[in-house]
Amino acid sequence: MSILYALDLAGTLVFAISGILTAIDKKFDLVGTAVIGFVTAVGGGTLRDLLLGQTPVGWMNDLTYLGLVGIALPLCYVGRGYISKLRRGMFIFDTVGIGLFTIMGLEKTLNLGLSPVIAIMMGIVSAVFGGVTRDVLCAEVPLIFRKEIYATACLLGGLVFLAVNMISPLRDLNIGISIAVVILIRYLAVRYHWHISVKPLT
Amino acid sequence: MSILYALDLAGTLVFAISGILTAIDKKFDLVGTAVIGFVTAVGGGTLRDLLLGQTPVGWMNDLTYLGLVGIALPLCYVGRGYISKLRRGMFIFDTVGIGLFTIMGLEKTLNLGLSPVIAIMMGIVSAVFGGVTRDVLCAEVPLIFRKEIYATACLLGGLVFLAVNMISPLRDLNIGISIAVVILIRYLAVRYHWHISVKPLT
Amino acid sequence: MSILYALDLAGTLVFAISGILTAIDKKFDLVGTAVIGFVTAVGGGTLRDLLLGQTPVGWMNDLTYLGLVGIALPLCYVGRGYISKLRRGMFIFDTVGIGLFTIMGLEKTLNLGLSPVIAIMMGIVSAVFGGVTRDVLCAEVPLIFRKEIYATACLLGGLVFLAVNMISPLRDLNIGISIAVVILIRYLAVRYHWHISVKPLT
Repeated sequence: MSILYALDLAGTLVFAISGILTAIDKKFDLVGTAVIGFVTAVGGGTLRDLLLGQTPVGWMNDLTYLGLVGIALPLCYVGRGYISKLRRGMFIFDTVGIGLFTIMGLEKTLNLGLSPVIAIMMGIVSAVFGGVTRDVLCAEVPLIFRKEIYATACLLGGLVFLAVNMISPLRDLNIGISIAVVILIRYLAVRYHWHISVKPLT
Repeated sequence: MSILYALDLAGTLVFAISGILTAIDKKFDLVGTAVIGFVTAVGGGTLRDLLLGQTPVGWMNDLTYLGLVGIALPLCYVGRGYISKLRRGMFIFDTVGIGLFTIMGLEKTLNLGLSPVIAIMMGIVSAVFGGVTRDVLCAEVPLIFRKEIYATACLLGGLVFLAVNMISPLRDLNIGISIAVVILIRYLAVRYHWHISVKPLT
Repeated sequence: MSILYALDLAGTLVFAISGILTAIDKKFDLVGTAVIGFVTAVGGGTLRDLLLGQTPVGWMNDLTYLGLVGIALPLCYVGRGYISKLRRGMFIFDTVGIGLFTIMGLEKTLNLGLSPVIAIMMGIVSAVFGGVTRDVLCAEVPLIFRKEIYATACLLGGLVFLAVNMISPLRDLNIGISIAVVILIRYLAVRYHWHISVKPLT
């Protein structure tokens, strides 16, 4: 199992946990909670694959993703209090997850011969759309529209990946650097309360 | 016309009626009501086909489905009071509908060479996603997340279908047995107020 | 650059502006505002392409559409007050936009060999679904369900297009006539407060 695949699974698991905890907080029942967990975990990659015409979508051919949601579900019901204490660890895996999802979506799009601009868009879609679907299904305005540094970190990570790819052929290293950029930006943003505020004129 | 096709149309009609009645209750206008009726009727199969890459989606090549919504619309405006008294009949057709949609989605997925686990998922998606879309378009938390026996009945009906298919080659009979299971579970759930309650620890 | 392409871009720009102004009114941040603008502008054509299986979807192969959102964004932040005074001009471009999107969606569907009924549906989807997605992402009941003349104008414009195509081979003229019908209906509807009211019998 490659390191990238392992990180992908770790990111998926953390996304599933975040979706499941949200649903439990909202007092959804078991089925609703499972659906929200699954959608949060794979929704981004699913929309990307639909837009790119890559069907059947990825998780249909690798049951591991579905299995991770099956693992996360009892974990969250039993260990909710304990998981809440792991917020720092969750934050790291979540950030690694969005960094990785961004790069993987970006690469998949480039490999189809589409433009780097579209590739970065598809990278961001892969990273954030799971959370957007979770919020729409919960009848809430998507969080991403109020915590924009999330998408911005993906954008910058994607740009860095395109840049280092031009000067270095070491794909794994380039991915590592790009994910490190995403983590750094999110860490600094949380640490120093960064916020991109653009006020319209009157 | 085969029995299965007739049941499929009956299920579609009942789904359309349930969507239209919901929209009328919410005082949507004519266009909104027609859209909600159509989406409730075909939304589940549409998402299934999109995820499986089976496009153009099914109802584009058989106008009967669209026609059923066209029939249901005036029926509901004229006979809303009368239809409300048919709740028992509606319940039966609705349950036959979700049972049948589950099995048809399941079979279609298996025929594409995908795993039985994914096939059951796609069966459930076919059966419940029309109602989910209806609720999202009405800016409500999907009902399915609060009435989980609905999806659970589809799940068990799908498992029974896979099981009887292993021991019997009589497809129509197997479908009948599986739909009967879905009906029985929903009937018992309503009759005895079944509810799957899983409380998280603290 | 053909006239049709120019009108398509003009319609896209106006749709993007309407989405962006909505998002600013709702105090979304920069990223959320950009997403709403883009989705409002291309959401209709995207759903149409997904349902028809025409992927990668259109805007992936022509970055002009994305660029228009990039132009509209600063325009709206800087000139919001000024744009509000242009409501009459916006109304015209918006109506030309939905007329054109209807005809283009209709033609694309016919060219795939699907029925005229489905073609008109896909035309309406192209014209209105961007606005529906905007409203769903804002956690509101889609406006289209309360201002039905919008979809009805597209429907009639589509029917007129099919009719004149039968008697005249002049495609550009036929498109012009059909768009004129859409504009006329919307103008009359706004001017004389038309409203299709269908009350259910008790």
